[in-house]
Amino acid sequence: MKQLDSIAIIGVGLIGASVGLAVRRCGLAHRVIGIGREGSRSLAEALRMGAISEGTSDIAAGVATADLTIVCTPVDTIAGYVQTALDAIPDRGLVTDAGSTKASILAKVATHPASARFIGSHPMAGSHLTGPENGHATLFDQRPVIVTPDNENSEAALEQIEAFWQALGAQTLRLTPSEHDQAVAMISHLPHVVAAALAANTPAEHLPLASSGWADTTRIAAGDVQLWLQILNDNRDHVLKSLDKFGKVLTQFRDALATEDNDRLGELLQAGKHTRDRMEEQS
Amino acid sequence: MKQLDSIAIIGVGLIGASVGLAVRRCGLAHRVIGIGREGSRSLAEALRMGAISEGTSDIAAGVATADLTIVCTPVDTIAGYVQTALDAIPDRGLVTDAGSTKASILAKVATHPASARFIGSHPMAGSHLTGPENGHATLFDQRPVIVTPDNENSEAALEQIEAFWQALGAQTLRLTPSEHDQAVAMISHLPHVVAAALAANTPAEHLPLASSGWADTTRIAAGDVQLWLQILNDNRDHVLKSLDKFGKVLTQFRDALATEDNDRLGELLQAGKHTRDRMEEQS
Repeated sequence: MKQLDSIAIIGVGLIGASVGLAVRRCGLAHRVIGIGREGSRSLAEALRMGAISEGTSDIAAGVATADLTIVCTPVDTIAGYVQTALDAIPDRGLVTDAGSTKASILAKVATHPASARFIGSHPMAGSHLTGPENGHATLFDQRPVIVTPDNENSEAALEQIEAFWQALGAQTLRLTPSEHDQAVAMISHLPHVVAAALAANTPAEHLPLASSGWADTTRIAAGDVQLWLQILNDNRDHVLKSLDKFGKVLTQFRDALATEDNDRLGELLQAGKHTRDRMEEQS
Repeated sequence: MKQLDSIAIIGVGLIGASVGLAVRRCGLAHRVIGIGREGSRSLAEALRMGAISEGTSDIAAGVATADLTIVCTPVDTIAGYVQTALDAIPDRGLVTDAGSTKASILAKVATHPASARFIGSHPMAGSHLTGPENGHATLFDQRPVIVTPDNENSEAALEQIEAFWQALGAQTLRLTPSEHDQAVAMISHLPHVVAAALAANTPAEHLPLASSGWADTTRIAAGDVQLWLQILNDNRDHVLKSLDKFGKVLTQFRDALATEDNDRLGELLQAGKHTRDRMEEQS
């Protein structure tokens, strides 16, 4: 991807700061403009870390010269910021995001006259930690980024957004917004609910006995509650379907154990191991 | 703990080899005798790695001079090996194990005339990997080891076993065999079933989208199927109870999401985060 004049990042938390660090590491843009609330601690920290080259709380001014604007805010606020950015970007500009859901965001933006210049993205990278101080330049290295074209996006615009994420080290793939939401319900949102339920179900007096197994299985339960409330609500129907499928598989494990059906229990454990091993081979 | 003349390790897989490496690192014994099957690959590997100072397939000969014998074999075979060891150890000798369940093992050993010289142990450390080549000398560092006294064990014998694990860097605590089995059902065996069910429930076509969240939540599902079949069967009643408790909590998450009860869903996510954060503070 050829070097851009400037990139604007709306929201410089963990994801926004990581985008900034990655952009600056590979010299993708002369200017990296961070946009945050007036007096925001994150903006000051992102500037201090070198994740952005300048900061502002004025969205319109911040995106006015940006070849590319990336909205890295919590899911509920993305559509609003995208529309504010679309109102103010230059003619050559594009807008993308890093939200964990796609269909509802794209639907909200669809009414904007410049909606074709917004291309939805979702980098499958993150952390249970938050804030720019936990961001890093390699967060997207070798990670999948899902780009979700809708009917209005031009092929040229899609390719520019894909080239951007690839320049940060990511591997892009395309899904429709609905395919995206269904897939991430299963691979990301369901594991979050399961990890949270497992942690919530653990009596405090047993915690001193926790090994790395419990720690790994519950790690994402430490994620930000408000961010996850937004994500789960925004993708409610798909998450509920994934939960129901998971509940059926869990019942199969339970029944095999309760009826001492060792062949069946072994098959189920093997199915889990097979899928987990396969993921390891792919990564 | 004062230096011992010799320690015997029956079963030199990941746990047995790690015990050997840790014993040799801290110079706890002059001789570390590994015991495995005739022509066993693990025994040769443990010897090559320096996890043991000598190897044999003759249990009686291997434990004959051992101040301490540690049985590190799969759960189903532990009671048998403990009894074989009790028949052959010197008068001063003690036997312990590293099994993931305790009540059934202690019950089987109870009929042996020297059963008081067997003290049940369970180090809360391990890996989804297997084999001596994945063992390491620091596996027990700062890890809890549960020691499960039964009525026949002398206080002196219990303290010797505790001193042994502490010398390897572990922190010991005492639970009755039944308290142990109930606690590990919740903190270790339930997470294994949940991780396996989550992995088994994931469609293969979604795997390329898996992030570190999915990878961590399902990691232990890659564990050895036969080992886990034995553990789950051996602790069936407690695991079923833990599964039912977990199922109720998961249903609470589902109901809160389905009824759009955001306050309740937030409380549940917060309860999970609270427990997970608390574990982090303790470790």
